[in-house]
Amino acid sequence: MTKTTIRVNRDIQAEKRERAAAFREKLSRQGTLVLNLVSSPGTGKTALLEAIAKELKGRLRMGVLVGDLATDRDAQRLAPLIPVEQLTTGGACHLEISLVEQGWQKLGEPELDILFIENIGNLVCPASHDLGEHMRVSLLSTTEGDDKPGKYPKMFRTSDALVLTKIDLLPYLPFRVEAAIEDARLIQPDLDIFHTSAITTEGIPDWCEYLEQQRQKLVASVQTS
Amino acid sequence: MTKTTIRVNRDIQAEKRERAAAFREKLSRQGTLVLNLVSSPGTGKTALLEAIAKELKGRLRMGVLVGDLATDRDAQRLAPLIPVEQLTTGGACHLEISLVEQGWQKLGEPELDILFIENIGNLVCPASHDLGEHMRVSLLSTTEGDDKPGKYPKMFRTSDALVLTKIDLLPYLPFRVEAAIEDARLIQPDLDIFHTSAITTEGIPDWCEYLEQQRQKLVASVQTS
Repeated sequence: MTKTTIRVNRDIQAEKRERAAAFREKLSRQGTLVLNLVSSPGTGKTALLEAIAKELKGRLRMGVLVGDLATDRDAQRLAPLIPVEQLTTGGACHLEISLVEQGWQKLGEPELDILFIENIGNLVCPASHDLGEHMRVSLLSTTEGDDKPGKYPKMFRTSDALVLTKIDLLPYLPFRVEAAIEDARLIQPDLDIFHTSAITTEGIPDWCEYLEQQRQKLVASVQTS
Repeated sequence: MTKTTIRVNRDIQAEKRERAAAFREKLSRQGTLVLNLVSSPGTGKTALLEAIAKELKGRLRMGVLVGDLATDRDAQRLAPLIPVEQLTTGGACHLEISLVEQGWQKLGEPELDILFIENIGNLVCPASHDLGEHMRVSLLSTTEGDDKPGKYPKMFRTSDALVLTKIDLLPYLPFRVEAAIEDARLIQPDLDIFHTSAITTEGIPDWCEYLEQQRQKLVASVQTS
């Protein structure tokens, strides 16, 4: 029997990485910082975006691509606050660069300071897919338990920032903030960590100031390159 | 250029389904009800199992196969209460029947009334994999938001029961119980729904009584077949 090696996946993955790099490069040139927001379902990605949109209104030009398996519920929530395009995967467990490119076109390729990509609620699969972002931001809710970073290590290892959400609920939960941070830093020592509540807005100004700084850094790095 | 069609995935999936069916059949014959617990990360699968183990101690013979990408934290929590074997996927986003078969062997193939399989925390990918269970049980935490069933439809559509967790936190959350139930029943009208708190143990006795009934039904169905 003749043995044949079939190489399929490698080239497809390489092509996706190239497209993601090209997207990142294009948006860098126009000064748009791209953020990929990842977390479990219900951690509060949409609520964080609502809070950011209110806090940075008039200060930064922003847009959102929001991913879901089904429904356009998140886009409907965000639409009154910020330009948004829904990406529906039809059941797939993560976003891919092709959907991001399509969403970006549908959004009209506006001149933005920050483009947010709200990924599918899934702490596993989105970790393996480059969406052309400059920064990956993991969200971890105080209601999920402080043991999650070590249990879902790839997501936290590939993230640049960690946003703790729902800190208003801390009085009612067994969540130990220091334990969660220690667990996350074991995996990724350079994580920038923020403590937030979208309901009380605690921590939102600090987080938004950080976003403005990151966007300024991107612009400065493009000008000097 | 010659066009060649390569069929790979279809037969692998069929083989997995056959193995899952054989596992289910084998455990049916010995009167072991197999439950596949699925949810987001941090919904409280392990906490629910701790509460079940305490409530049904001395009434049912139980065992657990617990899945994680990394670490054996959940198995360590459960070990003082119930026979448990950790299944570590090494990063994969769901459990498969082959891991369940291996875990079952490592557990010593004991004569149990109920075997629980705690799946990876992921509301997407585990929905597509038959682990040889008799029942699939979705958990939904009050902290995740009442809009989740419609956003992750396949998981709820393929479930037999829905366990709402963390109901002790309802006074502090915007979660509308009726909205979540309505959303879930739109997708799967026959869901058996339970309201629980592993911390206060509210709802745990009702849920455990249901488990005993389901196990009795399995035994009765095997005897009459």
